[in-house]
Amino acid sequence: MSRPLHPRQDSFRIECKDPCSHARCGVLETAHGAVETPVFMPVGTAGTVKAMSPGALEEMGSRIILANAYHLYLRPGEAVLERMAGLHRYMSWNRGILTDSGGYQVFSHRRLRTIREDGVEFRSHLDGSLHFLSPEDVVRIQETLGSDIAMVLDECTPYPVNRERARSSMDRSLRWARRSKDRHRNRGQLLFGIVQGSMYPDLRRESLERLVEMDFQGLALGGFSVGEPKPLMYDLVQELGPRMPADLPRYLMGVGTPLDLLFCVRQGIDMFDCVLPTRNARNGTLFTSRGRLNIRNATYRTQEDALDPECACRVCRRFSRAYLRHLHVSGEILSPILNTYHNLYFYLDLMRKIRQSIASGSLLELENHYRDQYRAAVRR
Amino acid sequence: MSRPLHPRQDSFRIECKDPCSHARCGVLETAHGAVETPVFMPVGTAGTVKAMSPGALEEMGSRIILANAYHLYLRPGEAVLERMAGLHRYMSWNRGILTDSGGYQVFSHRRLRTIREDGVEFRSHLDGSLHFLSPEDVVRIQETLGSDIAMVLDECTPYPVNRERARSSMDRSLRWARRSKDRHRNRGQLLFGIVQGSMYPDLRRESLERLVEMDFQGLALGGFSVGEPKPLMYDLVQELGPRMPADLPRYLMGVGTPLDLLFCVRQGIDMFDCVLPTRNARNGTLFTSRGRLNIRNATYRTQEDALDPECACRVCRRFSRAYLRHLHVSGEILSPILNTYHNLYFYLDLMRKIRQSIASGSLLELENHYRDQYRAAVRR
Repeated sequence: MSRPLHPRQDSFRIECKDPCSHARCGVLETAHGAVETPVFMPVGTAGTVKAMSPGALEEMGSRIILANAYHLYLRPGEAVLERMAGLHRYMSWNRGILTDSGGYQVFSHRRLRTIREDGVEFRSHLDGSLHFLSPEDVVRIQETLGSDIAMVLDECTPYPVNRERARSSMDRSLRWARRSKDRHRNRGQLLFGIVQGSMYPDLRRESLERLVEMDFQGLALGGFSVGEPKPLMYDLVQELGPRMPADLPRYLMGVGTPLDLLFCVRQGIDMFDCVLPTRNARNGTLFTSRGRLNIRNATYRTQEDALDPECACRVCRRFSRAYLRHLHVSGEILSPILNTYHNLYFYLDLMRKIRQSIASGSLLELENHYRDQYRAAVRR
Repeated sequence: MSRPLHPRQDSFRIECKDPCSHARCGVLETAHGAVETPVFMPVGTAGTVKAMSPGALEEMGSRIILANAYHLYLRPGEAVLERMAGLHRYMSWNRGILTDSGGYQVFSHRRLRTIREDGVEFRSHLDGSLHFLSPEDVVRIQETLGSDIAMVLDECTPYPVNRERARSSMDRSLRWARRSKDRHRNRGQLLFGIVQGSMYPDLRRESLERLVEMDFQGLALGGFSVGEPKPLMYDLVQELGPRMPADLPRYLMGVGTPLDLLFCVRQGIDMFDCVLPTRNARNGTLFTSRGRLNIRNATYRTQEDALDPECACRVCRRFSRAYLRHLHVSGEILSPILNTYHNLYFYLDLMRKIRQSIASGSLLELENHYRDQYRAAVRR
């Protein structure tokens, strides 16, 4: 693939590679510290990772979180965040923040929006008020937020979508990506492009190639987790991951389960975000080294064991399954607090193990270990 | 007042007295550590102080919390708590627990219960199932819970109630107190009697005298916070507080605001519990050294100040009013977490200042200081 030769900031470096796959360990330098990759970013849509204080996230070793420009634009609004000197200071988080552009959110409220060439018109999901945002607006909003990594506004197609619509949408996303790049001013903020093209491999490849030419500081695979069958996502990530420029951070948006992360890391993906650990926590579904469990289950009424006896987190060191069940069944606020802490710790711990396994050449063994536990858990 | 002369455990000792009032500093020895009085006990009805982890309560210096035997009897139930070896272990809290008997809860669901001489029949507020509990049952349940302080089952009359009903109810509560005392076996658990008699001073005095004869290890004033005018409560506490045995801990149940605590401490009260700091926190009403504020107020949209610039708590050291408002308005779980932490810290800090002021003879100045702030705040 052709790449422009003018110099870019050297914000990403590869530290080591897995000899048996496309997996690699890297370091992404942000304006708020270095982030070791592969990394999982907890989702903090509205400027807070639900049920977690920033102190709790620091304690569990999170180096970067995701926030959503669309949600923050609507509430508290750009003016407030400008006045408060950006999101880091507003939410008292001095580590990395990646802001999603809101493409996924705008397009997932299908009845509420109209897509035009100049941008997207939509109604607020909060109060029904009418808004228009161009790709340039979305860059400006993210500059106001002061995130460390900004994402271009893209059109996220539903699944399934015919080839023609997929192509025209992809073309528009590329024109928007170009406009975003041209508008972007903040030198301390990295801007990532987003590969679209629905589930058509050739469209995806074309999208990738044309984005590469635009010289973004990182590239993302967007448009997944829209209801497509998992094998399709796996095929596309396998196809695309290794083709993404090796010297750029590669980000798979909105994915996934522990097994998804392990698979996709092997395809060379460096960055992930997903609501699964946080949303599941609130529903009582907890990730453990022996598979998932639902803490609501009556089995746990008097179980004194830790949620995950192999887990070193603050919750597993202190509380029994019996008590966690009681909190959940009773609808107590402490339930999402403890569950979320554990699930995020589990995800961050998985990523630590993934990085170590890449370094020591044992990634496949790690994946097989989790596969046994999680496949077995599904069968139960 | 006559008192039996046979020896009791020496679980309470007075350390110093305020020369200008009935206030005193003491130490209450429980099976789970010493508690300095006057003390405020955060309310943890269902075995959790809403939105607080036990670690957070430890961090803010809470030495004793309140849980509710009625709620825990219904869920998770006596069998679970017996199997789990009591509430301390179940909730992973190794400090003091006082369990309320549930009298207030049973009687506040008026349509759901029938009071008989042998006990109370009621329907569960959770599933409508029918239950019967005698005073002896309630002692047994609290012994199973293994709380450090147990309360007798009492009948809590509504306000207003005529003299005749107040007397017959008070008489029954006294008979139940006697039966509770006779049934109580757990030597490591203190059992407190509860003074009733509605708003009739002579009935209250009689109730107190007859309870004193029963030789409880502490005495409580119950039946307040039932909708009575505040001056009436003040008059009765002023009347009764100093008449309660000086060598026993004196507990005013379900009270109150910061000014209530300051007033009642001067009447010789040693122990308090109240849902106000925790419930208010969830509603966005926050206590500060300058009075209450409602964090929902649009004034706070861009205020970078700490919630209470004079407060040393983790929330005030880290977050702005603007962010706390955003969390509350957005319905984020972090809102009750941070608000509750601050409000409880405020209450515990108030009690620390009260104890210091008693020791240094400056209690009245402290009260005047808070009175200025809180009266002014009400006027605003």
